[in-house]
Amino acid sequence: MSGSTFGELFRVTNFGESHGPAVGCVVDGCPPGIPLTEADIQHDLDRRRPGTSRHVTQRREPDRVEILSGVYEGRTTGTPIALVIRNEDQRSKDYADLLDTFRPGHADYTYWRKYGLRDPRGGGRSSARLTAPMVAAGAIARQWLRSECDLQIVGWMSQLDDIAVPFVDESQIPLNPFFAADAAVVPRLEQRMDELRAAGDSCGARIDVVARNVPAGLGEPLFGKLDADIASAMMSINAVKGVEIGAGFDSVSQRGSEHGDELTPDGFASNNAGGVLGGISTGQELRVSIAIKPTSSIRTPRRSIDRDGTPTVVETKGRHDPCVGIRATPVVEAMLALVLMDHMLLHRAYDGAVSLPVPPIEGPVWPSA
Amino acid sequence: MSGSTFGELFRVTNFGESHGPAVGCVVDGCPPGIPLTEADIQHDLDRRRPGTSRHVTQRREPDRVEILSGVYEGRTTGTPIALVIRNEDQRSKDYADLLDTFRPGHADYTYWRKYGLRDPRGGGRSSARLTAPMVAAGAIARQWLRSECDLQIVGWMSQLDDIAVPFVDESQIPLNPFFAADAAVVPRLEQRMDELRAAGDSCGARIDVVARNVPAGLGEPLFGKLDADIASAMMSINAVKGVEIGAGFDSVSQRGSEHGDELTPDGFASNNAGGVLGGISTGQELRVSIAIKPTSSIRTPRRSIDRDGTPTVVETKGRHDPCVGIRATPVVEAMLALVLMDHMLLHRAYDGAVSLPVPPIEGPVWPSA
Amino acid sequence: MSGSTFGELFRVTNFGESHGPAVGCVVDGCPPGIPLTEADIQHDLDRRRPGTSRHVTQRREPDRVEILSGVYEGRTTGTPIALVIRNEDQRSKDYADLLDTFRPGHADYTYWRKYGLRDPRGGGRSSARLTAPMVAAGAIARQWLRSECDLQIVGWMSQLDDIAVPFVDESQIPLNPFFAADAAVVPRLEQRMDELRAAGDSCGARIDVVARNVPAGLGEPLFGKLDADIASAMMSINAVKGVEIGAGFDSVSQRGSEHGDELTPDGFASNNAGGVLGGISTGQELRVSIAIKPTSSIRTPRRSIDRDGTPTVVETKGRHDPCVGIRATPVVEAMLALVLMDHMLLHRAYDGAVSLPVPPIEGPVWPSA
Amino acid sequence: MSGSTFGELFRVTNFGESHGPAVGCVVDGCPPGIPLTEADIQHDLDRRRPGTSRHVTQRREPDRVEILSGVYEGRTTGTPIALVIRNEDQRSKDYADLLDTFRPGHADYTYWRKYGLRDPRGGGRSSARLTAPMVAAGAIARQWLRSECDLQIVGWMSQLDDIAVPFVDESQIPLNPFFAADAAVVPRLEQRMDELRAAGDSCGARIDVVARNVPAGLGEPLFGKLDADIASAMMSINAVKGVEIGAGFDSVSQRGSEHGDELTPDGFASNNAGGVLGGISTGQELRVSIAIKPTSSIRTPRRSIDRDGTPTVVETKGRHDPCVGIRATPVVEAMLALVLMDHMLLHRAYDGAVSLPVPPIEGPVWPSA
Repeated sequence: MSGSTFGELFRVTNFGESHGPAVGCVVDGCPPGIPLTEADIQHDLDRRRPGTSRHVTQRREPDRVEILSGVYEGRTTGTPIALVIRNEDQRSKDYADLLDTFRPGHADYTYWRKYGLRDPRGGGRSSARLTAPMVAAGAIARQWLRSECDLQIVGWMSQLDDIAVPFVDESQIPLNPFFAADAAVVPRLEQRMDELRAAGDSCGARIDVVARNVPAGLGEPLFGKLDADIASAMMSINAVKGVEIGAGFDSVSQRGSEHGDELTPDGFASNNAGGVLGGISTGQELRVSIAIKPTSSIRTPRRSIDRDGTPTVVETKGRHDPCVGIRATPVVEAMLALVLMDHMLLHRAYDGAVSLPVPPIEGPVWPSA
Repeated sequence: MSGSTFGELFRVTNFGESHGPAVGCVVDGCPPGIPLTEADIQHDLDRRRPGTSRHVTQRREPDRVEILSGVYEGRTTGTPIALVIRNEDQRSKDYADLLDTFRPGHADYTYWRKYGLRDPRGGGRSSARLTAPMVAAGAIARQWLRSECDLQIVGWMSQLDDIAVPFVDESQIPLNPFFAADAAVVPRLEQRMDELRAAGDSCGARIDVVARNVPAGLGEPLFGKLDADIASAMMSINAVKGVEIGAGFDSVSQRGSEHGDELTPDGFASNNAGGVLGGISTGQELRVSIAIKPTSSIRTPRRSIDRDGTPTVVETKGRHDPCVGIRATPVVEAMLALVLMDHMLLHRAYDGAVSLPVPPIEGPVWPSA
Repeated sequence: MSGSTFGELFRVTNFGESHGPAVGCVVDGCPPGIPLTEADIQHDLDRRRPGTSRHVTQRREPDRVEILSGVYEGRTTGTPIALVIRNEDQRSKDYADLLDTFRPGHADYTYWRKYGLRDPRGGGRSSARLTAPMVAAGAIARQWLRSECDLQIVGWMSQLDDIAVPFVDESQIPLNPFFAADAAVVPRLEQRMDELRAAGDSCGARIDVVARNVPAGLGEPLFGKLDADIASAMMSINAVKGVEIGAGFDSVSQRGSEHGDELTPDGFASNNAGGVLGGISTGQELRVSIAIKPTSSIRTPRRSIDRDGTPTVVETKGRHDPCVGIRATPVVEAMLALVLMDHMLLHRAYDGAVSLPVPPIEGPVWPSA
Repeated sequence: MSGSTFGELFRVTNFGESHGPAVGCVVDGCPPGIPLTEADIQHDLDRRRPGTSRHVTQRREPDRVEILSGVYEGRTTGTPIALVIRNEDQRSKDYADLLDTFRPGHADYTYWRKYGLRDPRGGGRSSARLTAPMVAAGAIARQWLRSECDLQIVGWMSQLDDIAVPFVDESQIPLNPFFAADAAVVPRLEQRMDELRAAGDSCGARIDVVARNVPAGLGEPLFGKLDADIASAMMSINAVKGVEIGAGFDSVSQRGSEHGDELTPDGFASNNAGGVLGGISTGQELRVSIAIKPTSSIRTPRRSIDRDGTPTVVETKGRHDPCVGIRATPVVEAMLALVLMDHMLLHRAYDGAVSLPVPPIEGPVWPSA
């Protein structure tokens, strides 16, 4: 409604501003009895944390999560889990001169038009920092999904600027700051980032994410479709401008005889659907791809106006990622986890599902298809 | 929740199956005092109706809407408006032999896995016929949006198969069955459709839609973002596999210095954002593009399995559109109208918006950019 | 939100006006595979129907329900079930002279203030006729609750005007038009009704309702409490002015040593809680009691004003129940069934419940306590 | 859904346990630009605070609220306001011996049945301590309601045990710990409390609350009725067993000619409706009354069972209010404020209301009627 709660049964209510006292969330609807410690959440938070490589913002935030409720003696109690992450490195002075202007590509102008006032420090509520609580909530969901049905979620960067990043070796993903599944391409990515930093400019990225061992039958027609909820979740992430499921926009020029995935006794023969038909999961690998726009905060001077409509020039001087997409992978994974957890709970409510003798075996692996 | 209601304040609850007694919806949350007759709704329904050209399904449905409630003496009363469209041409026998198998690309398999049983007649609940009530509800929203702020929504086909359809002349859109904004390309589209029909195959389409005179300030951060709600609405439409806002996937290889729309005293200098920044409308033209997969019902034999997992071959014989995208434009417009109406009402609840001396004047026209 | 949908997982969206073309509802979130025919629903509708005794409104409505969707070959499919009841006996002329005035005790004034216009025929949307679709939806819920855990819901009139109706024999309830559980008191009730009719006046009633075999563990703290949802459901029924759970207002002057129900190996020793502790069901009999105000439509002249604020006198001449409470029992049962079904589904989503060796055995029977 | 969020447009998500690190809430949907400091909230919190008189629990909690987000330079920004109250005085040892048993009248048994585990310290999530965040959220709502339309909410104790507390002088309410509107009765109340404390027993209370200057037209038919939402809000408060609107249960034995409030050019002639007709506010004083059961924690030994079903005896030794109703008045006021604020926002979304020449002038003052 008012835009800070995500999910229906597994509900995450997010709060905070980039440079306020804290960011955090309340996770309501978590089943009881799940083992949960702050360390479980911290692991995922650390993957998203700024300051971990020279290619991302140098803001130093320990991003230490504190659990305020909902856990007793190491287990969830079924009551809301409040998570708080204090903001510590808040160099508000970096933003002082931007108070009166609207940075191109940022939400400064729209927040001003919507609310009539805004917290200008670090983007306030529109900062990517607000994805931290979602990663924290997603860590809880992922823990449950793993224990419930060994559901695994893996994301990676598949394109940076115009450099395609092939899916060669999944085990490489955690070994480089780009979440690239190909060690060979990393030097080129680093070079491009250095060039952009030198030029005071930025670029976009494409992130792919899959979920494996997704039960068939998740998703509600007509408007709680699994892919519709995923699209909403992905578009909720800062800077996302496009979402594809399965073949995505390539399906426009596919023929029906090619696109429609045939069924065999061994499973589907392909996966153009991306694991969703009619809004409901097929049991195949779930396949999602998103477009992230270039970082808006750049050192290149840009035309803008102030609150009186007078022309001005804006040039960002703060610490920023030359490509916000670099740190987006853990966020994308977390949002997908939240959607899936929500639909798993919903599925349990309505069930009626049957076991078919046909196992939902995978077709060819996606990125190579 | 259970998936048949769309919207928060302007709520549309959809019901029906392709070959059941009726399809329809209940529109709740419509402000009182709006002039409304069945004819107002019928106009939009007729644009979506099957059987209007040789390129779309020849199922003959008058699609006559009946208002059961919520209107008194030609005006809405503020109470729920129930709309019913009786199904008349229900050749269920066409589907009899498909009862036991799962058509590739269709939701047969997933409905079976989810519910354990399904209405197989014409796709049942997963039929594109269920978009008719949404078009009807959208007609009410569009009427209100026009009267409230002259908000206009225009959609068109921008690609069919691999044929790009240039945006040349908006006035051409209603003059051809493809909703193409270029008369010159229509013969090529017709030829392609004839080829596909002869080959028993199908293709996809890309649909673009814009909204003009959208007030600035619509959209709730973080999760009721205008673009997130649009993505959800679009992905709720049958056969949609991708959604873009503004520059969409092109933004991946854009530079920040190019993508971020500069502000001038005359308005934004460009519109890569597609009219949304930080999830909130800028006042610019809202720009959305979607990918529609090829029709799954084709005369080409395809491999499948039956409910026992035994291999079989499926070949659809019923009446179907060779490209479901051809009739999608009115649906896309309607869904966008529903999202905008919902956010307009929400905006009135929270308001706080201010008037800026800077008018949200448009940059270069989108499709040509 | 906009007020026509009840429930979260088992959602009923109600539509219609007293004298419009139809009333009805869409039931979304019904599990698949439940046997359901129109006859199953009709039985409960007939219990609520007007014109069945001389003590209730003589409006003749067959109240014939038609299922428009969601049922295939006699079983629910898991998709929304649309129910329509055509309005047939619509003597609108009875209300013509009331168009311009506000009947005391009715919603005429408030609808006018809220919407600026209203459908005056028979109370329009505020008519008790709108409870018919809720009874229809409740019939579906009751069918499922019975089959799921033999959950039984029984309501009765416990007071009419100042006449207490003792709970003597449950089997008497369906045998008299008052839903009285004591045959001996019926003549007194009939006499009181005749007196009121002769005097052109009306009276109120108290209705009690219990549910048996309610599983322990239903209800969500803090705000989806089972008793809070019941209170909301009951207060949603026309003319209800008070709701009690268990000991209700008597608990004000009880001592803690009396009120708190002791637990024994054989179950609770009493039931002052009414089957709910901390908002969660105990497994005991659920006990609810409501107050229904006197019928507002009476033949006694009353002071009022017209839309210009000019004093006038109102005297209702239409056909009305001298006590709307007489027909309320099936409605109360239906609303309780909707709440319980919703919470049962929610419980399945979250579960975590355990089996205790202590059976939730009943204490003394309630009405006699 | 999962029970920790209250409201639709003005949404309060509550978290915490009695003896966990903190209790608190996230208030989402607060309009921007409202002056707000921690001191504004603290004032209301202090009215509810324990340890303020010898008649309430001697737990010493400063109940210091901290604002974590949503306020910038002393004004709300329109983004979620997170409020945290640290738990400081947590004598968990008091509860150690109750870990394994179910205290009669408490939610111990139902939490155990629902979740399979529970936080036993001080009642955990079911503690009345969780009303503190609601009072804090209510303080924000009350501030807005006052500034918007001078809407005033006043509650008082109208009965303690069997002692009726007459409404004599509203100015007395803040001057005694009972929120009694009659100084003369206070000694009797104190004496009764002393007797109960000496006897190790407890009693219930009745709380009345009114809202003045409520705009006409608030409330959505059929299920977002103002009185239904109030009933739900009140029943959400710990220990509440009954809710009345206006004449409440007295309306059962009223005649229609008495109950239906006549309209005159000077306003309504009486207020049996309690300010709500058809679920919509009339503009009159809103009148609500609730029953609070006796405190369940008493020093009198009571029968119970342990988790194995073995009989045991429970005797509470911790610090507890002999009448929980004594501190309930600020909570009741807060919950009413939350409902009204929510409906005010909703009203702004839908509006359509008109101004009538008839002012909603009050009839006789309620408690004396």
